[in-house]
Amino acid sequence: MNQQRLKEMLDQVAKGVLSPEQAETALKDLAFESIDYAHIDHHRSLRKGFPEVIFGQGKTAEQIIGIMQAMAKNEEIILITRMDRQKADQVRAIFQEAEYDEAARILLLKTREPQIRSKGEILVITAGTSDIPVAKEAMITAKAMGNRVNSIFDVGVAGIHRLFAHGRQIQAASVLVVVAGMEGALPSVVAGMVRAPVIAVPTSVGYGTSFGGMTALLGMLNSCSSNVAVVNIDNGFGAGFMAATINQMPDKGE
Amino acid sequence: MNQQRLKEMLDQVAKGVLSPEQAETALKDLAFESIDYAHIDHHRSLRKGFPEVIFGQGKTAEQIIGIMQAMAKNEEIILITRMDRQKADQVRAIFQEAEYDEAARILLLKTREPQIRSKGEILVITAGTSDIPVAKEAMITAKAMGNRVNSIFDVGVAGIHRLFAHGRQIQAASVLVVVAGMEGALPSVVAGMVRAPVIAVPTSVGYGTSFGGMTALLGMLNSCSSNVAVVNIDNGFGAGFMAATINQMPDKGE
Amino acid sequence: MNQQRLKEMLDQVAKGVLSPEQAETALKDLAFESIDYAHIDHHRSLRKGFPEVIFGQGKTAEQIIGIMQAMAKNEEIILITRMDRQKADQVRAIFQEAEYDEAARILLLKTREPQIRSKGEILVITAGTSDIPVAKEAMITAKAMGNRVNSIFDVGVAGIHRLFAHGRQIQAASVLVVVAGMEGALPSVVAGMVRAPVIAVPTSVGYGTSFGGMTALLGMLNSCSSNVAVVNIDNGFGAGFMAATINQMPDKGE
Amino acid sequence: MNQQRLKEMLDQVAKGVLSPEQAETALKDLAFESIDYAHIDHHRSLRKGFPEVIFGQGKTAEQIIGIMQAMAKNEEIILITRMDRQKADQVRAIFQEAEYDEAARILLLKTREPQIRSKGEILVITAGTSDIPVAKEAMITAKAMGNRVNSIFDVGVAGIHRLFAHGRQIQAASVLVVVAGMEGALPSVVAGMVRAPVIAVPTSVGYGTSFGGMTALLGMLNSCSSNVAVVNIDNGFGAGFMAATINQMPDKGE
Amino acid sequence: MNQQRLKEMLDQVAKGVLSPEQAETALKDLAFESIDYAHIDHHRSLRKGFPEVIFGQGKTAEQIIGIMQAMAKNEEIILITRMDRQKADQVRAIFQEAEYDEAARILLLKTREPQIRSKGEILVITAGTSDIPVAKEAMITAKAMGNRVNSIFDVGVAGIHRLFAHGRQIQAASVLVVVAGMEGALPSVVAGMVRAPVIAVPTSVGYGTSFGGMTALLGMLNSCSSNVAVVNIDNGFGAGFMAATINQMPDKGE
Amino acid sequence: MNQQRLKEMLDQVAKGVLSPEQAETALKDLAFESIDYAHIDHHRSLRKGFPEVIFGQGKTAEQIIGIMQAMAKNEEIILITRMDRQKADQVRAIFQEAEYDEAARILLLKTREPQIRSKGEILVITAGTSDIPVAKEAMITAKAMGNRVNSIFDVGVAGIHRLFAHGRQIQAASVLVVVAGMEGALPSVVAGMVRAPVIAVPTSVGYGTSFGGMTALLGMLNSCSSNVAVVNIDNGFGAGFMAATINQMPDKGE
Amino acid sequence: MNQQRLKEMLDQVAKGVLSPEQAETALKDLAFESIDYAHIDHHRSLRKGFPEVIFGQGKTAEQIIGIMQAMAKNEEIILITRMDRQKADQVRAIFQEAEYDEAARILLLKTREPQIRSKGEILVITAGTSDIPVAKEAMITAKAMGNRVNSIFDVGVAGIHRLFAHGRQIQAASVLVVVAGMEGALPSVVAGMVRAPVIAVPTSVGYGTSFGGMTALLGMLNSCSSNVAVVNIDNGFGAGFMAATINQMPDKGE
Amino acid sequence: MNQQRLKEMLDQVAKGVLSPEQAETALKDLAFESIDYAHIDHHRSLRKGFPEVIFGQGKTAEQIIGIMQAMAKNEEIILITRMDRQKADQVRAIFQEAEYDEAARILLLKTREPQIRSKGEILVITAGTSDIPVAKEAMITAKAMGNRVNSIFDVGVAGIHRLFAHGRQIQAASVLVVVAGMEGALPSVVAGMVRAPVIAVPTSVGYGTSFGGMTALLGMLNSCSSNVAVVNIDNGFGAGFMAATINQMPDKGE
Repeated sequence: MNQQRLKEMLDQVAKGVLSPEQAETALKDLAFESIDYAHIDHHRSLRKGFPEVIFGQGKTAEQIIGIMQAMAKNEEIILITRMDRQKADQVRAIFQEAEYDEAARILLLKTREPQIRSKGEILVITAGTSDIPVAKEAMITAKAMGNRVNSIFDVGVAGIHRLFAHGRQIQAASVLVVVAGMEGALPSVVAGMVRAPVIAVPTSVGYGTSFGGMTALLGMLNSCSSNVAVVNIDNGFGAGFMAATINQMPDKGE
Repeated sequence: MNQQRLKEMLDQVAKGVLSPEQAETALKDLAFESIDYAHIDHHRSLRKGFPEVIFGQGKTAEQIIGIMQAMAKNEEIILITRMDRQKADQVRAIFQEAEYDEAARILLLKTREPQIRSKGEILVITAGTSDIPVAKEAMITAKAMGNRVNSIFDVGVAGIHRLFAHGRQIQAASVLVVVAGMEGALPSVVAGMVRAPVIAVPTSVGYGTSFGGMTALLGMLNSCSSNVAVVNIDNGFGAGFMAATINQMPDKGE
Repeated sequence: MNQQRLKEMLDQVAKGVLSPEQAETALKDLAFESIDYAHIDHHRSLRKGFPEVIFGQGKTAEQIIGIMQAMAKNEEIILITRMDRQKADQVRAIFQEAEYDEAARILLLKTREPQIRSKGEILVITAGTSDIPVAKEAMITAKAMGNRVNSIFDVGVAGIHRLFAHGRQIQAASVLVVVAGMEGALPSVVAGMVRAPVIAVPTSVGYGTSFGGMTALLGMLNSCSSNVAVVNIDNGFGAGFMAATINQMPDKGE
Repeated sequence: MNQQRLKEMLDQVAKGVLSPEQAETALKDLAFESIDYAHIDHHRSLRKGFPEVIFGQGKTAEQIIGIMQAMAKNEEIILITRMDRQKADQVRAIFQEAEYDEAARILLLKTREPQIRSKGEILVITAGTSDIPVAKEAMITAKAMGNRVNSIFDVGVAGIHRLFAHGRQIQAASVLVVVAGMEGALPSVVAGMVRAPVIAVPTSVGYGTSFGGMTALLGMLNSCSSNVAVVNIDNGFGAGFMAATINQMPDKGE
Repeated sequence: MNQQRLKEMLDQVAKGVLSPEQAETALKDLAFESIDYAHIDHHRSLRKGFPEVIFGQGKTAEQIIGIMQAMAKNEEIILITRMDRQKADQVRAIFQEAEYDEAARILLLKTREPQIRSKGEILVITAGTSDIPVAKEAMITAKAMGNRVNSIFDVGVAGIHRLFAHGRQIQAASVLVVVAGMEGALPSVVAGMVRAPVIAVPTSVGYGTSFGGMTALLGMLNSCSSNVAVVNIDNGFGAGFMAATINQMPDKGE
Repeated sequence: MNQQRLKEMLDQVAKGVLSPEQAETALKDLAFESIDYAHIDHHRSLRKGFPEVIFGQGKTAEQIIGIMQAMAKNEEIILITRMDRQKADQVRAIFQEAEYDEAARILLLKTREPQIRSKGEILVITAGTSDIPVAKEAMITAKAMGNRVNSIFDVGVAGIHRLFAHGRQIQAASVLVVVAGMEGALPSVVAGMVRAPVIAVPTSVGYGTSFGGMTALLGMLNSCSSNVAVVNIDNGFGAGFMAATINQMPDKGE
Repeated sequence: MNQQRLKEMLDQVAKGVLSPEQAETALKDLAFESIDYAHIDHHRSLRKGFPEVIFGQGKTAEQIIGIMQAMAKNEEIILITRMDRQKADQVRAIFQEAEYDEAARILLLKTREPQIRSKGEILVITAGTSDIPVAKEAMITAKAMGNRVNSIFDVGVAGIHRLFAHGRQIQAASVLVVVAGMEGALPSVVAGMVRAPVIAVPTSVGYGTSFGGMTALLGMLNSCSSNVAVVNIDNGFGAGFMAATINQMPDKGE
Repeated sequence: MNQQRLKEMLDQVAKGVLSPEQAETALKDLAFESIDYAHIDHHRSLRKGFPEVIFGQGKTAEQIIGIMQAMAKNEEIILITRMDRQKADQVRAIFQEAEYDEAARILLLKTREPQIRSKGEILVITAGTSDIPVAKEAMITAKAMGNRVNSIFDVGVAGIHRLFAHGRQIQAASVLVVVAGMEGALPSVVAGMVRAPVIAVPTSVGYGTSFGGMTALLGMLNSCSSNVAVVNIDNGFGAGFMAATINQMPDKGE
């Protein structure tokens, strides 16, 4: 239930279209709804501007379907992350209109296209081709939340002229998400070029002492550029969410 | 050299007040200036909206003074972080108008007060009293960059009613900086209450398995709230800088 | 062999129903029994109030069956933890009445229902749906030991009103087991609400820097609430056992 | 403010000794009191049965004094942990009746002796002589909370007959706190001997791969005995608090 | 080639049974023999009293067969460690008399039984049933090197009377190998009981913070008993080899 | 596009064989070429003397084929590392002349044999047989770059006479690549014997505390010999590349 | 109390020189003696052949003196390890005949010279000069226990001919203690040269990634030589004790 | 003793200027010289082209002086690293002509200036001002070994135009040493610009998750540029030595 639907319902009560009793019934599950294995936070849309996102990993397909059914009554968009193909197929047997992106491991169920709610553009940049799945998780998330999103892939620091060739687009972005594995140096370089905030996403791309992305993460936390903050390894979803949160801040003026 | 001073100089050339040769001399060090032990990035004010910040740790007082002297020709504000008292005293023997905050370990030299450049307010929250020095580093940084900054101290999760008592102020903030040591749980709880972006700062407060802040950092990176991004341990400066960067984004509309 | 059966046997000797020689034969294996690959601690029921629990991981099905056969002579209840389905099926081919919970990976063989041996209730709380299997391991263990056990699932700190809605039940619990992965913040918040002891169980739910539960564990060890103690990652069994131990302490008065 | 004083005050209102207005004034700071650098949780005595404990590390003597002054209005006992001698001396210049234990680094201010509130006894055991300071922190804490506390020092596993010589006392204890550094093996052995709950406290005693107590901690988390839960390294305070919490549970019957 | 065969050959030359040229041919590969992928150290039997042992992991079956063929010309016994069943089957298709122990993952090829070369007995003790495979690797190794070897399995510290029941056998052993996972406490307890040297072997038995045996290893390195030294995790082979080396030292007298 | 082909093209323009427009077309993709998922750095041959090498891990076969097709227009040699057999087979269905080395996991596509571009010889040494795959990755890389390469396998420090027997060849090498797992001691010993630079490559050969090669890496970084530098674990490619870079330095004289 | 004194006392009783009552008084403290802060294990001399050794670190000088006074009644030799000079001076004010070695940080109190109790010789070898203090701790310990001890210092692998020049002495040793920091490679090389057991001692000599000796320790645990076992970092005492234990094994024959 | 002095001496014998007996005396210590606490490797100059370098840390001033006295008989240059000022002063009381650089912590004793032995130039680059001490250690080492050395300081990636402004000098260098702390990204960027080999040196500059240089080290080991190899944290000496080794390779041609 988002802010708009709440307002509509209250208007309907004011106009006598909906009786107070009917409204009460509709609203009573607003805070949360408890099913056997989950407490669904229906209030989140109101509080945070976007419904609860389902973390697919570690849940059975049955549990995911149950949660989706409870949410679908109230929400226009449902996002499930970290879904492998097998579970996604089981869920889509029930929710046939859900879209699945296998690289991003995201399942998306929506009843209408998200509206763009910001003038600014989020730009997602990757150091390598192997970082693209994480970038896509960020892009799908931010788009689902109503943002303009663009991307530049494979412009790592070993051939840094590739990055600088996109200088104008980089400087025009409202928020940047920079995705890199291995030594994770790209966010420092990008952040040094721009005034905008940079969300750095370490990926588990690499081997040996990349330690599943820990090296990239540590590099990003120690960035010598200051307009950088970091999210968990391979957390494209979190980066996209945080970038959207920033991009959609109410006007503050300068 | 910031954008305004550049514009003024070019206006003076246009009006004939300044000869092109004089302007050229003034501008030739714009990109950077090399002294024996440093390449001072005079271009940074233009590029990033704030001059280069001096990392005090590992530099001698002499080196810091030298860098400040080179910067003072062009900049209205100079910030030096991670200064211990002894070095600060040596520097203030030369720059007597510099202000030193011992808790925050920041030295600030400014020729005029920074102008507020955003309508929004940055709110800095700490879990405990021992986290205040890091919070102050963030607050001084963000204020120096021209932001309204407010604070709530010592509202950790062991007595969570203290936090909720400030609910209205928390929900009104434009950007939040949440500072916590030990288990680092506070950013997750705060981020669950608001729609605004939260910058989480782990501190080295704790002992044993707090591992100098590593535990708090890991907790924050794994936050189950999604509008959170993280900076390095005890990096109050970086958090303040990032929050300012977000708070001062040009209007994007919703 | 538990305390009650020992007493019965001694009574029978006193009454002449059992000859001293027969009793001696029955008791000689009391300390422990050695089979090829195991020293079965038959004395444990007497010493600790519950028979030895079999750690299923790393043992062959044949070894587990052998140990169960040795124990079944003396014990009313046998618990095997960390059993995968394949081994459980092999064991149940022999012990057909054994019950297997696949989520909890526990196999339970009992000749009669455990008696409730405490007035207090153990309450098991999880942060997320994915933490439920570990919670179930705790619940089955504590029930098998003769405790009342209840549960609240999926009330993590990102939507903390879900937790507070259960405030009365939480405050009424005798002992709490709080199960969480990711940042592991829930035990601190719960412990801040109650006077009762809290056993915190980190789970391996998460990815990247959750480090297989290490982050949750570290967070719990650094809890700013003091009525918390911690067990190993994913150690639902240990948490259930410890909670039962506390719940069943002989009356101490206040 | 503890439960008894609250009841007295309400009785006085009922009897007309205290006007509702006077009571209101007295109660208005009950939830918490905000001073510049701290939110003092006056509600904690009611909620948890013991007032907020001040974590001395990282606070200035001035801050500690300020917090103590705010608390002293309501509480009969104030405990400050992790106090070095220098700060303790500064505080005792103001609170001259405060008692300081240098080994335990605890400062204790009390207006009357704590009443014993449980029949059971807490037994604190150490593996070595070097572990005694941590044991003392646990003992002082548990005594301050109203428990009978006893101790056995220096009975580590290298000469295990020393431990078994105390078997009767160990088996009689209501709750055990077992303190050990180095390999941290003692809690497993003790827990194997008793039915009571064991709180294991790793200490930083050792060198090289003891890793400041990490090795002892890991050993305790992996105990093959199940009636064990663990607190942070050198956290004698937490162990004493948890043991007291368990020892003072309301009667549950068996 | 061992010391005895070298002596026989030189005797044969002295007696004219073997021509110097024939002996030279036989001896020329004594130092080592180079095949495509290996430098086989034929000198090792002479230098160390036992031929080179083949580390099976990471080698193809073809490479192992090639090395065995080169060694079989000179050695009476060939030991290959860390062999999975599949590779073992491939090798036994060529060397049909080789014996394979799947638990210990050892393949053994011998032309005659090893002679007992010491009066003392090596005693291998495990904490649990799951540690037996590592114990067997030690036992097979030490037997192959000509030692009397005995074992006691599953006598961990949670039921320590099981260990003490074997006190006489334990005190009689010449060298002890103590194998334990989880907290790895058993070697400290055993070493406290005896005067003989103890080789401690951590195993990867456990889960969560057992960190694949790291916890047991750290515990053993920090043993409060001093007659303990440690080998790598799951290194039953190394423990057996070291114990044999100690057990077979030439007489030194006391 | 390498330096030679660039020169030929410019000569052709100078001679009128090629029109400036034709040359421009040929050169316009020189800096890089952007396809959907990659920015191919065509400039790298000119800048670094060898074309971009494709990191096969984490890329789909389709992506690899696409990148190869873009590169094949300009380059005589294309190297893809970290290719498993399945992907290699998919790629060779398109590029049938590509050579695949399964041990080294390298796919190599070349239109003519690389020319030897240095008098010196690179010598690759391994400690064990299990280290050979990493050694082969280094050898194939260095050969593809135009170097003479030789090897000595399985001469680890447990039988150090095997190493010294190759002393002359070792001292004659221009650059040495020393590959070792387990304790990683070999590079120190080799570097102590020679004046030439040694590139040390840790491998993941080992178990338990070898930590996937971390132990070998740490050993090499702490070498008491000073003519040693280190690359990532199992990074045979990087070692071969670095050795080639050193071996092919322009003459500097002594 | 060692075995000899026990026998003498029993002889005196047999001869009537000592009354049974006097003997009983003398023997009653045999098991252990409890003083306020310690349980002194008087039985250890009998059980292990050497009295309890006092771990000086973390104990006050007063505690050490108290323990020494309790031990001095029964023992001919008392060893205290990890004593800094300040504490040693305080102790020697009481026990003036005690000898202190500042490098080894050992304090030794003996009433007569230890008798040599083995024909074999323990040889202590160091990789560098900086490793000598740890070597001395081993040497003093082994000498105090009645062993012949010799040493070779500063023969690390960077100039390995220095080691081989001592080949004869190395091969003649009964037990070897090899002490090394940095990469810790020396034990592998030495163990490859001999048939005798090698006790490897990692030291904290080094910087950066030597991690206070962790790198050397890991290297030694992963030794490709099999007659090696390892003790804790900087644990010269433990290595000397273990070497003495091995060197003084009763004859076992070959 | 270097190659030139050996040749001179043999010439003198050939000419009869020196008797064979005199030469023998002079040469007998060539292999090494044993003093109480060190084995001085006099052969190293011949073998490696530069005498043994003394690691100052962990040695007493007396030991360093003793080693210098033994070396001074044969060598023209003696280098001691990791010397603090206090020890340096003690040494210079004896060797008054020794030069000490406090930033680099190097003491240098030379009887004549080192001759330049290569045409190429080594270029040392730092990311920040705080990295200069490590850079100086590299520069002094390489100069002492007879190399041309130049430097560029403080050109980190946050203002990358500072680096590119030195592009020509960077591309002209024969070998590059790149020194960086924090995220350690600079070597990747520099290596991407050049064909020459890059030695990367991580420094301990930073705080929090810089982990004393570990983060920079890991970043460098995972560099996406391939002409990079790495040395230990803060190991300026090793980097300078390795760069010199590469720069002074005999001509190999291209």
